[in-house]
Amino acid sequence: MPKAVNRSRRRAVALTPTLSRRARAKKRTHAAATAVGIRSFFRVVTTDEARARIAAAAPVATETIRVAAALGRVIATDLVAAVDLPHFDRANMDGYAVRAPDTFGASASVPAYLILAGSVDMGKEATRRLHKGEAMRIATGGMLPPGADAVVMIEHTEEVGHDTATGRTVEVHRGVAPWENVLRIGEDIAQGAPIFGRGRRLRARDLGALTGVGLTRVAVFRRPRVALISTGDEIVAPDVRPRPGQVRNINTYSLVAMATEAGATVTDFGVIRDRREDLRRALARALARHDAVLISGGSSVGAKDITLDVISSFPRSEIIFHGISVAPGKPTILARALDKPVLGLPGHPQSALIIFDLFGTPLLRILGGEDAAAAFAPARTVRARLSQNIASQAGREDYVRVTLAERGGERIATPLAGKSGAIFNLVKAGGLVRIPASAEGIDEGAEVEVILL
Amino acid sequence: MPKAVNRSRRRAVALTPTLSRRARAKKRTHAAATAVGIRSFFRVVTTDEARARIAAAAPVATETIRVAAALGRVIATDLVAAVDLPHFDRANMDGYAVRAPDTFGASASVPAYLILAGSVDMGKEATRRLHKGEAMRIATGGMLPPGADAVVMIEHTEEVGHDTATGRTVEVHRGVAPWENVLRIGEDIAQGAPIFGRGRRLRARDLGALTGVGLTRVAVFRRPRVALISTGDEIVAPDVRPRPGQVRNINTYSLVAMATEAGATVTDFGVIRDRREDLRRALARALARHDAVLISGGSSVGAKDITLDVISSFPRSEIIFHGISVAPGKPTILARALDKPVLGLPGHPQSALIIFDLFGTPLLRILGGEDAAAAFAPARTVRARLSQNIASQAGREDYVRVTLAERGGERIATPLAGKSGAIFNLVKAGGLVRIPASAEGIDEGAEVEVILL
Repeated sequence: MPKAVNRSRRRAVALTPTLSRRARAKKRTHAAATAVGIRSFFRVVTTDEARARIAAAAPVATETIRVAAALGRVIATDLVAAVDLPHFDRANMDGYAVRAPDTFGASASVPAYLILAGSVDMGKEATRRLHKGEAMRIATGGMLPPGADAVVMIEHTEEVGHDTATGRTVEVHRGVAPWENVLRIGEDIAQGAPIFGRGRRLRARDLGALTGVGLTRVAVFRRPRVALISTGDEIVAPDVRPRPGQVRNINTYSLVAMATEAGATVTDFGVIRDRREDLRRALARALARHDAVLISGGSSVGAKDITLDVISSFPRSEIIFHGISVAPGKPTILARALDKPVLGLPGHPQSALIIFDLFGTPLLRILGGEDAAAAFAPARTVRARLSQNIASQAGREDYVRVTLAERGGERIATPLAGKSGAIFNLVKAGGLVRIPASAEGIDEGAEVEVILL
Repeated sequence: MPKAVNRSRRRAVALTPTLSRRARAKKRTHAAATAVGIRSFFRVVTTDEARARIAAAAPVATETIRVAAALGRVIATDLVAAVDLPHFDRANMDGYAVRAPDTFGASASVPAYLILAGSVDMGKEATRRLHKGEAMRIATGGMLPPGADAVVMIEHTEEVGHDTATGRTVEVHRGVAPWENVLRIGEDIAQGAPIFGRGRRLRARDLGALTGVGLTRVAVFRRPRVALISTGDEIVAPDVRPRPGQVRNINTYSLVAMATEAGATVTDFGVIRDRREDLRRALARALARHDAVLISGGSSVGAKDITLDVISSFPRSEIIFHGISVAPGKPTILARALDKPVLGLPGHPQSALIIFDLFGTPLLRILGGEDAAAAFAPARTVRARLSQNIASQAGREDYVRVTLAERGGERIATPLAGKSGAIFNLVKAGGLVRIPASAEGIDEGAEVEVILL
């Protein structure tokens, strides 16, 4: 791996924004046409290599929290059930607890007749044993009385006789097999069985499963603390009327929200001027109190160079890659400083947000304890038919924004025209179609997988 | 529509849990086999009818909040762009601002030669006009100087000459068309163009689009306030060691999380004993301070009857339906009391959670201002091939839990066996396969749409 470029080299490049004509070469050495002839090193990686580097990030520390507050948190230790669930044989239907053999062969025309022997109260043990030839009323969730081994659904029965709790008979119109309509001891989950493995992000329905086996607190990874530093001398706050040449801040608000959705707590450092000392001061503060730093890039070439330069000025720093062979979003930087990951995002809103989806969200999810495979899995995908050709450049992985529509019972993906500097183009998109680096495009009519946004 | 059953009828039913054998009829009148011969009315609806009734719920009030805090909130008014974005012609690439005709016909072998006339600073207007035969350095996001109408990408240029800002020449190796590599005034979005319509739930990338056009506050529906009342005499808190017949609370924790994910703020009323006065008191408090009430049903027949009875005892109340022809989860209640929706969920964990997914989440999203179509759209679906037959009962919409796996490049859905009282069955499921009421099952090998959980 190339070492971080040093400060004077970077400054030289910053003053001469000229790039080589062979700008798309995977990994290149570019001779800036300057009087001093300094060579700058770029390390452009494939998307697979970028993913492998991100997957190597180490998770943050763990903490123990209440299950009730654990929605979306990632489990830090493998969990096993400490108890059987249920811990008694439980009626799974409203009806009558019976001894199954007493009902064998029963039908509507030839019912079995059982003596009503009372009711099982919810949440209590039966007051007595069920004997041969008897039935007890039981509601869903009730505990089977000793002696019973099945429940006849109420729909297959009829009570006849006087209207008192005793002296009544239950007609059974359908036989039941042993343990039919019963949730047996440990049938939901058995004591000692694995529940969830480390690295699982807890969903709403998982929480009830945990409380069901008596877990009220759970060890999880704490939320990664992430700092977002925005740069760009042209960027003003959204409530400011921009002068000619200035634009209102777009990326910060979307990126904070995306990082939050990825499970992080985000500190917004606001927009830092494209000056080395300002950025260095902000980055020092950010690194001191956070697990990772996002730098939303100023658009100018000079700004990018300052970023690399400032990162490299910290101890235990490395530029892991500088450029991914992907479009949009090639000028993405992964580095570390003070051993913490620093992700430099491109300045174009569409590029920044797509790169964050593809690489930033996984990074934060991995920091948050998730398995890399889960962290990189696109949220959801659908198959669709392409309504027109998409051209692409071989050697570069392309992500094309598409809209989705139903036509003639088929899902149709239509590429969106529009420049990557435009945010509303991305807002309109329903998904992304990935074109692998090996392809030169996809033909109209092809079935494609769409990553839903 | 039938009127709410009155109190004495319900109490009579509560005392006699016998149900008719024709329990699955859509709408039925069931003669309880009691000495007094009281008839109880059930209003069982189809899933379509249930959806139509839920869709009629009125949204909550609106409030104006900061865009930075609006992730996941629903827009209350149609929004239009008050400004052009960008409000100046903006470079979409790093390179040189030029007059396009000056580059026509340029190639690597026959370059065009332009006089370098300085640089455009980020965030500022150019210091002078670009004249014929000139080029100015410009970075992505920079404002085009007056006179320029295109940007040549830096990759297609070379600067030659002395290393000073003047006296240099720019070789252009590829011609550009007028406005090439420029994001024109209003090209992202034009002043007066619609941005988002009322009813849209704001996603991360939408927030930046709003701030980009200068919106820092936005009118949204406030979060619906929802009360969750759990009933069931057999249910104990998860940190209590349950006695025989008792079970730890499962549903409350999952339902609070699901309602939160649906955009609501939830007050957990805990577990209320299955006694009329206790439930009435809790429901009165819940209705006073919330927009809707969820009642997570006790499992017993008596508990359900008490619920109906108590709801009906409030002014401006109606049992809208009592039962949906769906499995799991038939015993679902939609009612209103004090004109507020009350959703009664089945007691079985799987039934409660699936019904909440299918009907509860949409109800809360509609209360929160979302369009009914969006609110009922299943989050995400995938196509998969069924690994075995699924039997189903005609006249009832079935939702079968399946696991999903890849096999031979194909996505395979395998139905999960297991009783609906078991929570871990649902936890293991990757999705649900819907079997319409008109079908009696689906054959092995059929392609099905899986609603992802």
